[in-house]
This record gives sequence, structure tokens and C-alpha cells, in this order.
Amino acid sequence: MTAPLVTLTTDFGPRSPYVAAMKGALLAVNPAVQLIDLSHSLPPQDLQYCSWFLQSAVPYFPPGTLHVVVVDPGVGTGRDILLVELGGQRLLVPDNGCWTGLLRQASDRPRVFRVIERSLWHAQVSATFHGRDIFAPVAGHLSLGSPAERVGPEVKTWIDLQLPSACVKGDALDGEVVFIDDFGNLLSNVAGEEVRRSSIASITVGSHRVERLVRSYGEAPPGSVVALISSADTLEVAEVHGSAARRLGVTVGTPVRVLRRVPSDTIASAPP
Amino acid sequence: MTAPLVTLTTDFGPRSPYVAAMKGALLAVNPAVQLIDLSHSLPPQDLQYCSWFLQSAVPYFPPGTLHVVVVDPGVGTGRDILLVELGGQRLLVPDNGCWTGLLRQASDRPRVFRVIERSLWHAQVSATFHGRDIFAPVAGHLSLGSPAERVGPEVKTWIDLQLPSACVKGDALDGEVVFIDDFGNLLSNVAGEEVRRSSIASITVGSHRVERLVRSYGEAPPGSVVALISSADTLEVAEVHGSAARRLGVTVGTPVRVLRRVPSDTIASAPP
Amino acid sequence: MTAPLVTLTTDFGPRSPYVAAMKGALLAVNPAVQLIDLSHSLPPQDLQYCSWFLQSAVPYFPPGTLHVVVVDPGVGTGRDILLVELGGQRLLVPDNGCWTGLLRQASDRPRVFRVIERSLWHAQVSATFHGRDIFAPVAGHLSLGSPAERVGPEVKTWIDLQLPSACVKGDALDGEVVFIDDFGNLLSNVAGEEVRRSSIASITVGSHRVERLVRSYGEAPPGSVVALISSADTLEVAEVHGSAARRLGVTVGTPVRVLRRVPSDTIASAPP
Repeated sequence: MTAPLVTLTTDFGPRSPYVAAMKGALLAVNPAVQLIDLSHSLPPQDLQYCSWFLQSAVPYFPPGTLHVVVVDPGVGTGRDILLVELGGQRLLVPDNGCWTGLLRQASDRPRVFRVIERSLWHAQVSATFHGRDIFAPVAGHLSLGSPAERVGPEVKTWIDLQLPSACVKGDALDGEVVFIDDFGNLLSNVAGEEVRRSSIASITVGSHRVERLVRSYGEAPPGSVVALISSADTLEVAEVHGSAARRLGVTVGTPVRVLRRVPSDTIASAPP
Repeated sequence: MTAPLVTLTTDFGPRSPYVAAMKGALLAVNPAVQLIDLSHSLPPQDLQYCSWFLQSAVPYFPPGTLHVVVVDPGVGTGRDILLVELGGQRLLVPDNGCWTGLLRQASDRPRVFRVIERSLWHAQVSATFHGRDIFAPVAGHLSLGSPAERVGPEVKTWIDLQLPSACVKGDALDGEVVFIDDFGNLLSNVAGEEVRRSSIASITVGSHRVERLVRSYGEAPPGSVVALISSADTLEVAEVHGSAARRLGVTVGTPVRVLRRVPSDTIASAPP
Repeated sequence: MTAPLVTLTTDFGPRSPYVAAMKGALLAVNPAVQLIDLSHSLPPQDLQYCSWFLQSAVPYFPPGTLHVVVVDPGVGTGRDILLVELGGQRLLVPDNGCWTGLLRQASDRPRVFRVIERSLWHAQVSATFHGRDIFAPVAGHLSLGSPAERVGPEVKTWIDLQLPSACVKGDALDGEVVFIDDFGNLLSNVAGEEVRRSSIASITVGSHRVERLVRSYGEAPPGSVVALISSADTLEVAEVHGSAARRLGVTVGTPVRVLRRVPSDTIASAPP
């Protein structure tokens, strides 16, 4: 039998004892889980980053995986903690919208439970560290086979994050940079599908006009700023073997605009 | 049967091949352990940080866990390596006081062994990398069930780290900042218990007077500098949704002073 | 039975969803693997660093370990992906020379296969993220017991990285700094064996003359710049309790020269 998979995602930072304490508290309830670190270096309290992170990673995990997510600026206030069942997987998250991106791209509907059953929590609960005192022990109990209903009542409403969306205005696709990875690649929210369907006249990020649309980084010489379809199937702007973020001075939220000549079904450089 | 839990804590840095080599050397002896990374980004050779780290994390792990700790400025000198049994768990540490904080808060007494039995070590031992050549293979053998006595003789003395302690002088509680987390929160060594028992007149960190004592970050508006009881049950100073360390220019060692009106049993904002 | 060991090494960065997505894609094929993070913070697209990293770590792992390495500046171009069998272990690597250092120090010959069998890949393969879409699922299938021949045909040629080599010119050993660790220690490619066999007249790194040759850091006072034999059995230059890289302003590629008095069999301070 396979050990239950539990992943951990936090903004605690790479040298934090908080990550270690959470792992201990979880393993103390179920030492047989397989713990998988997703990241502990998410930008502090950045819910939009967390939302993108989860929608980029969670769908690839097998059914039955439990994802524990602690990006929690509201810790110790009245914010709820939720157990979400979605697509055969489960997430334990603060009710702050950090999973909105995942929900938007899901094909099925979630079941959501409010985590209130204190018998599953640590005996003492601090005001500032629910990751260790609530999330970790609850995750331990769930990994032992506790049904979702054990954590608390099912709920029908929760916080949604206001995520920027792209839109089509005549011959323009207007979006923005929603994620910058550690290579400095700029991922936008302009759908790859829209780009593939179009004959492109120009692509701009902020005031910078991108030189070429390519299929992959290797098609242009080092130092070129190119556009391509990202691994998330959205429009991406990258500097080949460099950092587009540094080169262009771009941050999350910078507008991205694609101008089309005429709508069409294919462009020469589109991926298959 | 559950795989034996072995945790790793080092100051080797996130991109270091040294962490990877240690993992290999440990798994070569026992490929069935469950390896848990606590952190590899501890500030280099900072024993006080390491001591705080361990006391904040180790107590949450289940009995039987083995913690391998390599923050080891004295590697290759005559410093000893110790196997410590404490609270049902074990630690493999350089004898440099990195576990002093853990010992001070423990309720039971440790059994300590000097690691000298070379048959458990790697065949060649380098002068600069005992993590790979001694700690890892010894941990592997211990995880296979070797009794503590196998590593070497029991000892009754070891290095203690000089940790700063807080003290009470009349109406003042005097301590200092002993740990700064990756959010920039300032954790002091002033006991939460003392704060809860007191009616607070003022709290200062260095020359900065803290505005309010709250129960959790969310009780004050973003940007406020607040005091609260930390998850380690000590006085903490934080900037809500910001970094108090950056805001106040504070480092570890900065004095923290709590002035009390009169001793009392409770304050309004104390955690339950 | 022990879970199959699969290690992951990338340059994706510590907060990247790409690492998480790769783990998910691998566990989706085989949820029973034991995943071991080697590092996800390798300098972006730095093949020489990756080569040193792998040769410093891989040899310590037990037979049967599968190492997945994604430092892949050529992703999406015609570069091949290779499955390498070497020394009883396996590596899944881009064909860009990232494993050249490992090969050079190996005593046996590799068997190498070109990864072309698409039935082992993700159903959709993006142009920019073969780590998730090819490496991860192929690793999953291999960990389930697929023989190497399943991934594609055996090949006899591959890309070799041009790694700098040290040489002996009369009384001089000439090498260079090939790796700088997170402590700022400078590791050269001058063989420890050559240093041990020599009576040393002087050691210089760039224009800086090193004060002493010692056996371990602890033999000289803090702040000293010393030479010693590294844990990789090459000449290393370090600042005791400090960073030689910062102190001397040295980067990878800086020349290292050892002048010998006369060849001899031992030096006083050589390790046993």
C-alpha cells in the first residue's frame, strides 16, 4: 500500500523553523505520510502568487493527494479554514481566496467544509501559528482516513480572490502579467488558445514591443525578447537565456496587449 | 511498519551539493528511511540561530525521530560529535551547543554519547565534510536499529551555548531579540507567561516604543507595529503585513523592555 | 520492500510552481516513489555548476537510484533527452553535457539511451516545460520497473561539456576555481593528490597569495585565508569563518597556481 501523499506550500521562508514545526506536528499524528514540499518561499502573504502557484501545480498530482497551504495573512482573526474537495484531490487552505485560480480552471464543482472540529487540532492553539496548531494535525488525521465531514460542516460560500482577467476588444487582446518566474519569464493571462487562433500584428508588454513570436526559447538568439505560449498555455514573454523581468523592468500587473491583423485559425509558429 | 524518520538541518545553503551528498551517504546505508528536510538555509555557523531553530521545531516531532544537525564551524578540529537522547527523540549534533535551547526547555534529562566508533563511518573521512562522512552514515546505522551505545561511550559533560536570558528588575522585564523570522517578526526571550501576568505600561524594542499589545496580527491595521505573544510563547514585535526588522532597523541582540504598572494576573488582550 | 529512490535537481528556483508540477506529474505515474530533492536553486542554465554538483553528490547514492536533472537551456529545440546508466545508478538528463564531470570520474562505462518513446510521456507536451511533460512521467515509468530500452534506442555519442582541466608545468600546478559554495569557499580543479605529493612553496588565487596550507578550517584563526584539501579531494581556498569569494573578489574561472619546491612524497600538513 502506498503512503498517503501530503504536500506543503507556505510563505514561511527557507530558513524558518515554522516549516519544520509544521512537519513535526503533522508526522506526530501520522508518521506514515509521504511529505512533499511544494515550496516554502512563496512571496509573503501574496495571495495572487499563491493562486497562480496552485493552479500551475495541483492539477498534476494524483487523486487522493492532500495539499496543505499556509499563506495566511489573516491568521488569528475570524477568517475560516477550509477543507476543499476538488477533482479527486483535497486542499486545506485559509479562506482567503488562495485557491481561486484552481477553482476557475476546474471542470467539476468543489465540496467545501469549514474546519471547526477542535478535537482534531493541537491541544493548545496559538494566535499566530495555525499552520502548526490546526492545519498540520488536521492534515494528519485526514491522511489517516478521516472523512471530510469530520472536520466540520459543509459550506456553500467562501472568499473569492479578484483575479485579473484578459479580454478581447476588437482587434486587441488585453491582459496583464500575472506571474513572474525565477528565470524572470513574464506569464500573462492572455489565453494561448486566443493567440493560436490569431494572426498577430504586434505584442507589447507595458511600453515594450516584443520582437518575435516563437515556439520555444531556443528559436531565437540569446538576448532576444520573445513571446511564446507558456507551459500554462498562456502568452509568455521571455528573454532568451536571460531575465525579461529585469531587462524590461516589468512587474506583475503590467499590461500585455496583443494586436491582431484579422482573426484566423492558425499562425505559422503555433504549437501543435 | 512505518519508515524511520530522519530529519536534516544544515547551514549548507539551498544550492549546495553538500546537502545532496549527505542524503546519498545516508540512503546508501539505509534506503528505507523517510528523509525530512527541516532547513538547509540556516545562517552560516550561527549557533544561536540553530539553537532557537531546534527548540522551535524538534518538540513537535514524534518519538523515535532522529534529527541530524550539521551547523559545524569546528569541523576537522578536535570538537566531538554527540548522539543525544532527549524526550524520546534523538539528535546527532556537533558538540558546539547548538542544542542548548532544546535542552533548557526539556523536562527530562538527556543521555549523551560521544560518536567515536569508526566502523559506522564512511571508509574515508575528509577533514572538512563530516556531515557526509560521519553524520550521514552514523544516522543510517541508527535508523536501522543500532542502539545508542554502539556509537561510542556515554558522556556526562558537553558544550553549553551562552544564551541570553531575560530578567525581572522591579517593574521592568528586560530581554532581547533572540530570533528574527523571514517575515521580519522579532521574537524576544521575554516569557509570554510574564507578559500575561502583567498590566503593561509600555513595550520598547531598542529605542522604539511599540504602539499596542494585540492577540494576533489581524487586530491592528496594516503597517502598525504591535506586540503579541509569539507561537513560541514569548513576547514578539511585528509590523502587521510588513517587516518589523526592516521598519525598526533591529537585529538579534537588540534590547527589549516591558514596563509593568503593577503585577497582576491578567491583561485584557491575553490569549486564553 | 523499499520505495524506489528518485532524486530531483533543477534550476527552477525555490518558489517555482514548476518544481511542484514536476513532482505531481511524477507521482501521478508512480505515487510510491520516495522523492528526494537535491536542489532546485542551481544557478540558471549554468551547465558547469550542474556538472560539478552532480559529480559531488551522485556517487554517494545507493545503486538503483534514479536522478532526474532539469537544467535545460535548450528546451524545445532539437536537443535530445538521455537516460544514462552509470555505476549502478541512472540519470535522466538533457543532452547538454551536464553530467560530463560525473562521467569523467567514473570507473566504468555508461550505457546511454535516447528518450524518444512518446507513450511514456505526458499526453500533451508543451514547448517549454519538458521537465513536467517528459522527464517526470518517464521517471515515473522507470521507477515502476521499465527497462532502460523502453525509453528509446541506445546511442554511442552525446554532448560533452568542455570542462577546464588543471595541468603540471615544471614546478607549477596550474588550475582554476571551478566551484564556489554557499560559504564562499573556492574549490579548484587542482588534484588533492598532486598537492599531497608536493612540498609547497606558494599558493595563489588570482593575484592573492594564500597564507597557509592547513588540514581543516579550525587550524587557523577566524579571518585567515587558508588552503586545504576539499571534500572533493581538490585544492580549496577558504576564509576561516568567512567567505573567501567575497574577501578576495574571486569568481569561477579565476586561475589557481601552486608552486612546488621540489617534488616529494609528503607535506607536513597533508591529510592521512
